Amino acid sequence: MSLISVIFGRPLASDEQDETKIGPLAGVPAMGLDGLTSSAYGPEAALTILLPVGAAGLAYIGPITLVILALLAVLYFSYRQTIAAYPVNGGSYTVARENLGVWPGLLAAAALMIDYVLNVAVGISAGVAALVSAAPNLHAYTVPLCLAILAVITLLNLRGTGEAGLAFALPTYLFIASMGIVLALGVYKTIIAGGHPQPVFAPPPVPAAVEAVSLWLLLRAFASGCTAMTGVEAVSNGVSAFREPRVRNAHRTLTIIVGVLALLLGGVAYLAHAYQIGAMRQDQEGYQSILSQITGAVVGRGSFYFVAIGSILATLCLSANTSFVDFPRLSRLIAQHDFLPRGFAVAGRRLVYSGGILFLAACAALLLLVFKGVTDRLIPLFAVGAFLAFTLSQAGMVQHWRKSTSNHSRLHLWINGIGAIATGIALLIILAAKFTEGAWITVLAIPVLLTLFKLVNRHYVKLTDQTIAHEPLDLTNNQPPVVLVPTKGWDRLTGKALRFAMWLSTDVVAVHLSNLSGEEAEEEEHRVRREWTEDVEAPAGRHGVPLPKLRVVQTPYRSFRRPLLSEIDRLKSEYPGRLIAVVIPEVIETRWWHLLLHRRKPARLRAALLKRGDHRVVVVNVPWYLED
Amino acid sequence: MSLISVIFGRPLASDEQDETKIGPLAGVPAMGLDGLTSSAYGPEAALTILLPVGAAGLAYIGPITLVILALLAVLYFSYRQTIAAYPVNGGSYTVARENLGVWPGLLAAAALMIDYVLNVAVGISAGVAALVSAAPNLHAYTVPLCLAILAVITLLNLRGTGEAGLAFALPTYLFIASMGIVLALGVYKTIIAGGHPQPVFAPPPVPAAVEAVSLWLLLRAFASGCTAMTGVEAVSNGVSAFREPRVRNAHRTLTIIVGVLALLLGGVAYLAHAYQIGAMRQDQEGYQSILSQITGAVVGRGSFYFVAIGSILATLCLSANTSFVDFPRLSRLIAQHDFLPRGFAVAGRRLVYSGGILFLAACAALLLLVFKGVTDRLIPLFAVGAFLAFTLSQAGMVQHWRKSTSNHSRLHLWINGIGAIATGIALLIILAAKFTEGAWITVLAIPVLLTLFKLVNRHYVKLTDQTIAHEPLDLTNNQPPVVLVPTKGWDRLTGKALRFAMWLSTDVVAVHLSNLSGEEAEEEEHRVRREWTEDVEAPAGRHGVPLPKLRVVQTPYRSFRRPLLSEIDRLKSEYPGRLIAVVIPEVIETRWWHLLLHRRKPARLRAALLKRGDHRVVVVNVPWYLED
Repeated sequence: MSLISVIFGRPLASDEQDETKIGPLAGVPAMGLDGLTSSAYGPEAALTILLPVGAAGLAYIGPITLVILALLAVLYFSYRQTIAAYPVNGGSYTVARENLGVWPGLLAAAALMIDYVLNVAVGISAGVAALVSAAPNLHAYTVPLCLAILAVITLLNLRGTGEAGLAFALPTYLFIASMGIVLALGVYKTIIAGGHPQPVFAPPPVPAAVEAVSLWLLLRAFASGCTAMTGVEAVSNGVSAFREPRVRNAHRTLTIIVGVLALLLGGVAYLAHAYQIGAMRQDQEGYQSILSQITGAVVGRGSFYFVAIGSILATLCLSANTSFVDFPRLSRLIAQHDFLPRGFAVAGRRLVYSGGILFLAACAALLLLVFKGVTDRLIPLFAVGAFLAFTLSQAGMVQHWRKSTSNHSRLHLWINGIGAIATGIALLIILAAKFTEGAWITVLAIPVLLTLFKLVNRHYVKLTDQTIAHEPLDLTNNQPPVVLVPTKGWDRLTGKALRFAMWLSTDVVAVHLSNLSGEEAEEEEHRVRREWTEDVEAPAGRHGVPLPKLRVVQTPYRSFRRPLLSEIDRLKSEYPGRLIAVVIPEVIETRWWHLLLHRRKPARLRAALLKRGDHRVVVVNVPWYLED
Repeated sequence: MSLISVIFGRPLASDEQDETKIGPLAGVPAMGLDGLTSSAYGPEAALTILLPVGAAGLAYIGPITLVILALLAVLYFSYRQTIAAYPVNGGSYTVARENLGVWPGLLAAAALMIDYVLNVAVGISAGVAALVSAAPNLHAYTVPLCLAILAVITLLNLRGTGEAGLAFALPTYLFIASMGIVLALGVYKTIIAGGHPQPVFAPPPVPAAVEAVSLWLLLRAFASGCTAMTGVEAVSNGVSAFREPRVRNAHRTLTIIVGVLALLLGGVAYLAHAYQIGAMRQDQEGYQSILSQITGAVVGRGSFYFVAIGSILATLCLSANTSFVDFPRLSRLIAQHDFLPRGFAVAGRRLVYSGGILFLAACAALLLLVFKGVTDRLIPLFAVGAFLAFTLSQAGMVQHWRKSTSNHSRLHLWINGIGAIATGIALLIILAAKFTEGAWITVLAIPVLLTLFKLVNRHYVKLTDQTIAHEPLDLTNNQPPVVLVPTKGWDRLTGKALRFAMWLSTDVVAVHLSNLSGEEAEEEEHRVRREWTEDVEAPAGRHGVPLPKLRVVQTPYRSFRRPLLSEIDRLKSEYPGRLIAVVIPEVIETRWWHLLLHRRKPARLRAALLKRGDHRVVVVNVPWYLED
């Protein structure tokens, strides 16, 4: 077994595609990770914005969370409808493309692609943040840790994650269970203590206020908190993966995911307020995430704390995996529509779309490096893409229902309409609040991506236009090519090339290039011509076939390219309308160090001929191999 | 004019080779630089060895120099004879090869090549040492300065130094003149002062002795001092460059070079003793070379001092140039004899042997980096090669005279015999004295180079053996090839390829690879076959030509290579004895970014086919170009 097989696994045949269908139990880990783990960074992002107003900010986290929960409810009902209407693939790209047109579809696609990249970076950096909270001496290694986790996830995805069901289910349910216990216990303790519980492990005090609460600050906190909703659309992308009854299973999965997410968000907001827990700066020593502080405050720093933090780390890292499933799937769709390079639509040895996986990993690595793995710096770029895609998808659904004749379509239209408007407003708030902090990068990246789509598409359209055959094979006037054989004198290579050339055509011209001059050149030409007469013309004459001609050409500048090209031009004008086949005899080196011993003239000549862009030239490689 | 032309100069035609012949006046700078400038580091190298015995060492520099001068005299008379006997090219490689055999010749060549590389490194590092003596604050930049000077020399040589006569003559004669003045004035002052002159600018005191004088120490000092003789052979390499009377002009040039060198060596030894000037460590701050100390002591640190030091720096750097003339010439000769890659024998755009120049520059740069530009560390590696080449050359001359029937051959034989023995003994002393200090590197490098020669030669011999034609063109049994055309379905590319293929042979098989499976595959095959019938078979039938066959092949692992290779194997066994021509239609991308949009299957297929090593396969590239 080769090293590559060990690392990437044996190649899979096309018909080995995993066709196992899933139910809600497997669906929640497979599609809910991105959404559920948003609870780990969404509330924290909002609290980070509230940091400058000190303890006063904690009073506002409740109302902000309520608005977010309301928006989440709207999204829930909207996506239920999308799932029912597109039971195969209800991704934003498809819904927007089918209902609003190609470019709105591509706009949604661009927004989603950017968000998938950000989800990887944010998921991993938040996971590492959880790890660093538990083990502060790892703080200095934030970026290397992020990149190492990214590398492992990328490798696993290149192998294909078909067998990884349990690996996903275990940490997901562990995360839900442990956070559920922490939050439930915390709420219980708070109620018992009359709203002011005593923390087991005291969180650091919330710093003093340095500015007053303002509406602008609250809007910004809301905008940051909206990142908690990213990933909710995942179920609608993969409805086809559910077993029958497909739509009902998808609905159940969506319900579980959104329900758990809502409980987590509500619980975190409630306890942050009760325990007076504020955000801390991730780029400073001693940093602790909100979930770490809450867990410590509620259950202390015993073994349970580490199990909980471990499950957060694991699920956050795995949440990056949602992007690794969705991004290649999306880029493949776009590539199939000729708006991305076709490499994205090619299944690799393990039947995964390796192009998309590698591209996603490269972009995420770049982001992690540029932003030094700090979640808080990535958050402003995030959510713009998700909410743009939400809005376009909902708008597409509105259009869908307008054309629909089903008897509930009026109600459906209203639900998706409210969804579109609500997510649209949220998008505007996010844009306004986050623009200068980093959202401008996302806003700039979208037209860049769209331009890329356009350029790629233009090329493929040109390619198709110019290569598509409008008529059957035309064999009229199919004259034989004229053959040119570059030669270094009479040897076995030239012999093999000439035999082939003389089959190809009756007009064969061998060209001998000489970089000698004066007397030496004359002597050489004499020798070469004598050999030609004896070794080529004589046997050809005996066989009664047309004699191949020999031309000896001087190369005063020792370049072989130019004289051969002008020889070709001469043949082109001498034999108008006929192809010129350049038959290049070539010793092929099979050991790398032999390459140092040769100037690779044949390969360079072939490249020069093909690059020249001459429709009338065809290049024939006649290889010659040395025996050992 | 392109950037390349600005940097490297316009290309030169082969017949523009500079044929200007020179006399002694131009010959001394052109061929004497290496030899003359050895006086700048040879005595210093000997004095460095004597450093541990303090002032006592200075008493021995006189006798050591006398031995060196005696050896120089022997070399002078020996090389006079070599020049007379080989008035075209009397290089050690040629002399040893013609008289002693191929491998002794290659041994001399390997020794010389190593010495040329060392000469570049030593010349430049000694030049920079002179510069740093005058401007001590440049000391920290020793290595960058060395590399910058190397880069300039390399570039000038890639342009060709044909026009650089004056640039060489001026500093050479300035060097001879200024050192002549300094030495003459110093000797005069010493005699006036009764052997104990008062220095104008006092040299630093010689450090106290830390060990006693021993024979071993004196031998080591002699061995180091022998580096002063490197470069003496240069005239014998280039006799053909002199105008008639060629031999007499060469003799005169050699006489001037050796005479001046002897005066410089004697003067330096005398004044070092008189002024009590010892060597200093180059890798320490405040370092001053011997010549700098002598000049300062004799004339003070006025403007004349800086002119003299400037001329030393310039000539030392230019002395590296001697290697840049001789190394490519030598490596070209070896390459022409098939013991080095043929690239070394190819004249570049400026008619210089760029391969040798670049290789020399790379090796010298490596040495300068590894030894941090410190002359003293490079000296132990030096001289081994030169004296090995001296000895082999003299031994070759002895053999030459033994076969000769000229009436003076007995005397000639004795002179060269004494030369061979004297340089041989010097070589043994150098080896013994310097082995552990670094000469082992040279000793190790020589067999490595010889092995390289052997391997290269074996390959070229095999190549010639297997490609040389022992019989004329054999057209018996020249059956047409069987043609295989990989196709993606009926399009214009396939059309162009088929038209060509059908000229080539009556047996044409198009192969359509399908990576679909099940129903989809059947559907696709049906569609492709229908197109084939309509668009290919029908017109072929109307023209009464044999119908090209279509095969649809499944690729369960999505690889195009393996199924096509097994298709080729199938054709090979179906049509025994016939060539298989694989006609590959290919869209050629002329813009770099288009390469990202394609998977370059045709190029990869061509590479795979050629690398496979199948004698019966010929590859035909049918290019297709998109119009703008």
